[in-house]
Amino acid sequence: MFPETDTPAVLIDLDIAEANIDRFQAHCDQHMLKLRPHIKTHKLPMLAKRQIAAGAIGITCQKISEAEAMIADGGVEDVLITFNIIGDEKLRRLRALADKVRLSVVADNTATIDGLSSAFADADRPLTVLVECDTGAARCGVMTPQAAAELAAYIAEKPGLSFGGLMTYPPTGKAPAVQKWLTDAKTRIEALGLDVPVISSGGSPDMWQAQDVPVATEYRIGTYVYNDRSLQSRGVCTWDDCALSVLVTIVSVPDNTRAVVDAGSKVLTSDLLGLDGHGHVLGRPDIKVASLSEEHGVLTAPAINLKVGDRLRIVPNHACVVSNMMDHVQLIRGGSALGPQLVAARGKVW
Amino acid sequence: MFPETDTPAVLIDLDIAEANIDRFQAHCDQHMLKLRPHIKTHKLPMLAKRQIAAGAIGITCQKISEAEAMIADGGVEDVLITFNIIGDEKLRRLRALADKVRLSVVADNTATIDGLSSAFADADRPLTVLVECDTGAARCGVMTPQAAAELAAYIAEKPGLSFGGLMTYPPTGKAPAVQKWLTDAKTRIEALGLDVPVISSGGSPDMWQAQDVPVATEYRIGTYVYNDRSLQSRGVCTWDDCALSVLVTIVSVPDNTRAVVDAGSKVLTSDLLGLDGHGHVLGRPDIKVASLSEEHGVLTAPAINLKVGDRLRIVPNHACVVSNMMDHVQLIRGGSALGPQLVAARGKVW
Repeated sequence: MFPETDTPAVLIDLDIAEANIDRFQAHCDQHMLKLRPHIKTHKLPMLAKRQIAAGAIGITCQKISEAEAMIADGGVEDVLITFNIIGDEKLRRLRALADKVRLSVVADNTATIDGLSSAFADADRPLTVLVECDTGAARCGVMTPQAAAELAAYIAEKPGLSFGGLMTYPPTGKAPAVQKWLTDAKTRIEALGLDVPVISSGGSPDMWQAQDVPVATEYRIGTYVYNDRSLQSRGVCTWDDCALSVLVTIVSVPDNTRAVVDAGSKVLTSDLLGLDGHGHVLGRPDIKVASLSEEHGVLTAPAINLKVGDRLRIVPNHACVVSNMMDHVQLIRGGSALGPQLVAARGKVW
Repeated sequence: MFPETDTPAVLIDLDIAEANIDRFQAHCDQHMLKLRPHIKTHKLPMLAKRQIAAGAIGITCQKISEAEAMIADGGVEDVLITFNIIGDEKLRRLRALADKVRLSVVADNTATIDGLSSAFADADRPLTVLVECDTGAARCGVMTPQAAAELAAYIAEKPGLSFGGLMTYPPTGKAPAVQKWLTDAKTRIEALGLDVPVISSGGSPDMWQAQDVPVATEYRIGTYVYNDRSLQSRGVCTWDDCALSVLVTIVSVPDNTRAVVDAGSKVLTSDLLGLDGHGHVLGRPDIKVASLSEEHGVLTAPAINLKVGDRLRIVPNHACVVSNMMDHVQLIRGGSALGPQLVAARGKVW
């Protein structure tokens, strides 16, 4: 199994990734929803460009440094950063980024907006700022539609800024509540005489119900490009739709109920996402990825029937954090290895 | 708080790290135990050299690529790799490594030993191979003292190899059982007419009881250089002994029970190590690091009393995986920033 590839390796099957991109683009097209993929999952400019070629309107990044890495080669012209940007150094880099691409950001507080305004007050073009809304996920975001309207008005009056609409990272499976919240906010903002050109929602778990929040104009989504055990367990995809797997070698078989592989939490990560065990062994559903230490993974089964030197492929619980662990992923198509690909935005947390 | 350092940043306080190195070296010296630090925690050649300068006999690595990164600058001359090395590419690199340093490895199975022997059969010096023993941790290792003796004899007869002794990654808090297991194995091997020059045990949780396995000749330990919330919770260290912390900025305060910081699982990792929450906020024991998404951390408290732009330092649950997330850590001494340091062995999983 991929004898020319040393293990552990993160394999990306391009046939599957491209099919995932095209299938969800078709779904969004059918429902007249703009698609803005989040590059946090793949962190590869080549796949961002493939997403745009398929019809995406631009990309989503979480951090400025991710955006810098994704646009370096050209071919990506529209970036939304869904993060409160704080601090002089980041604002300086954000301003430089705005000279290169069509840029928008989000904010959920006046301190962030004041900083953005200071940085862009003398810019040729205003920076587009969306209000981040907490529609139930309890992470960032203003907590009421009225607070969203007040912050929209605050942005609209600030030098250097343009109010761009609403953005939410919604709770899973709560489309009616999200629809109600965003519609209420939109109505209040329009009553102030402001347009709400964009309403951005998203999330892979609800991807096939993206149309159930019809007030939204665009959908942000990351994991769908690779899929993973978490999405398979939710019925969002099948194992055949999983483009990312970790190629491992059996390094020890202490007895026939246990085998140890050369990938631990420094490759597969400790993300559980509510699941039991640390991944799915392709073709061996009887095996449990029972525990991880940093560089070892312990597999258990009633009869493991593996020998030292055997290779397996493990679909991890959470693809987005695994592709971030390696400097290079290994591209494949079906059974053929195509070679390593630099993960350009790996480790870009600033 | 470190205004010249952008966040999120992994801070390493060298005063604390050096004190940790010296204190445990003194403990080992007092108990006539050789110390062989595991570099998995810091992955920095500068700290490996500091450990050797303090009295360590060499270093432990888990992977060949870690060892390659650690010896590149010189100053490290003795390396034990505590992993079954499998496959032609790794054996080729292992052979090259053996030309540069005094090298030993471990094995728990004949397939691994056969590969090592093939690679070293025509070498000028034999490769030292220790038998890895499962004394209760249920990861790698032969499962009985008799199996250890048989594998020792197997190594001793193989061209290109030299039997180097026993190695175990012991279960925590089980010193009497580990002592009994290793003594039994040593007796059986000596009965075959073989010397057992090294018996290597280790682990940070039991570090202050390292002497409780007197049959062991050397101790391997990684986390002690930085310490972390896991070791603090076990009473092994205090917060003042924690050399690694994550500097974060508050980016959102939705209400006075919740604040969001700019570090999530792509910095702090999802390692729980049995703990509740994802880290300890220095100086604010009332705050819980309640949840992480990839780039956000959610803090909760009855009265959080933080504002956007404030900075905090978080001691993570598990230091070893956090220093592996960033290309650079930021060195500090007390309150002064010294600048970035490349994490030379970050992501070296081959």
